[in-house]
Amino acid sequence: MKKPIEFYFDFSSPYGYLASTQIDALAARHKREVAWHPFLLGAVFKVTGQKPLTEQPVRGPYHARDFARSARLLGVPFCLPEGFPFFALAASRAFYWLGGDDRAKRLAKSVYHAAFGEGRDVTPVAVVARIAKNEGVDGLEAGVELPETKAKLREVTDRAIAGGIFGSPFFIVDGEPFWGHDRLAQVERWLATGGW
Amino acid sequence: MKKPIEFYFDFSSPYGYLASTQIDALAARHKREVAWHPFLLGAVFKVTGQKPLTEQPVRGPYHARDFARSARLLGVPFCLPEGFPFFALAASRAFYWLGGDDRAKRLAKSVYHAAFGEGRDVTPVAVVARIAKNEGVDGLEAGVELPETKAKLREVTDRAIAGGIFGSPFFIVDGEPFWGHDRLAQVERWLATGGW
Repeated sequence: MKKPIEFYFDFSSPYGYLASTQIDALAARHKREVAWHPFLLGAVFKVTGQKPLTEQPVRGPYHARDFARSARLLGVPFCLPEGFPFFALAASRAFYWLGGDDRAKRLAKSVYHAAFGEGRDVTPVAVVARIAKNEGVDGLEAGVELPETKAKLREVTDRAIAGGIFGSPFFIVDGEPFWGHDRLAQVERWLATGGW
Repeated sequence: MKKPIEFYFDFSSPYGYLASTQIDALAARHKREVAWHPFLLGAVFKVTGQKPLTEQPVRGPYHARDFARSARLLGVPFCLPEGFPFFALAASRAFYWLGGDDRAKRLAKSVYHAAFGEGRDVTPVAVVARIAKNEGVDGLEAGVELPETKAKLREVTDRAIAGGIFGSPFFIVDGEPFWGHDRLAQVERWLATGGW
C-alpha cells in the first residue's frame, strides 16, 4: 500500500479551494489516497512575514483575476467572499472534531464550496454547523469547543510550521514537497514516474 | 499581424531563466513574436514590499529545490550562482544598448545561461562584455554607460511598476496578464483559444 498524498490547506485559501476540487481524482488515477490537513495559514504567516494575497500591494488585483481565470479553466464555480481574507477557525476545528474521516472530508468540500463557489461567509460557527447539519451531522457547535478539538488543530498547524509548509495548498508526495495549485501537474507527473 | 507576447523578466530571476528557455518556441507554435523586456525587479520590490525568494524565511529552501526540480523537468541545466540574489544592472543595460533587437535577445539568452545554466557571476560588466564579445559585439562597457541606455532601462522599469508587473517572469498576451513560469501552460492555452 503506497503512502497517501498529504494535502495541507487553509479554508480561506482560494488556491486551496481550486486544488480541493482536483486532488482526490488526481490521486485516484494513481491509486492513492489523500490525507486532508486543514491548518491555520495565519499562524504560518507570523513566521514567514507574508500577508494574504489580496492584501499585498500591486499583487492583490492580479491574484483576484488569476483565481477566477484558473477556476474557469477548471470549470469550477468561483467567487471571492465579501469578507475575504477571513479566519476559518470554525471549519478547521470542525474537521478535526469529526476525526478527519470521510465525513470530515465531505464537510471540508461543502465548506469550500460555500465559501468560494457561492461566496458565503463561513466564518461564523453557526454557518458551518448548518452546512454540517445538511449532511446529517449534529452537535458541531459544542464539538468545536472541546479542548481536544482545539488541541488537534494547533498540533497540525505546529507540524506544518515545523515541516516548512508555508502556503496553501501544499502537498507532500512520498516525502517530496510541492507548493501551490499550479504544481498539480508536477504532482501528477511525480506520481506517474516516481520522480525525476 | 497579431501582437507580440510581452515578456518581462529580471536577469537575476531563476523562474525568468526557465521561462526564457521556453517562450520563443511556445510563441512560434502560435505564430507569434516575443518582445523581451528586462527590468529591475528590485525597484518593483520597493513598491510591493517583497523580498527575493531565497531570502524569505521558510520559503527560501523550498524555492531552491523547486528551481532545480522544475529545470530538470524541462531538461535545461540549472545551478544557483553563489552570489544569488544578485543585481543584474549591467546585463539589463546591455540589452537596451543593443536596442532590444535579435542581437540583444541572443545576448540575453547567453547571460541567462551563464548565470543559471553554469552558475557564473554575471554582475560585473566585464563578464557581460566578454559574453557579448563571444557573439561579435564590441564596445559594451562604454555602451552601458550612455545616458540613453540608462534612461531606457529606467523607463521600462517604471512602465512595469505602473502596469502592475510585480514579478519575473511576467507575460502580457493580448492585454491579459500572466505571472510566473508556472503560468506558461495557461499562456499557451490562451494563445490557442483566444481566452476562456
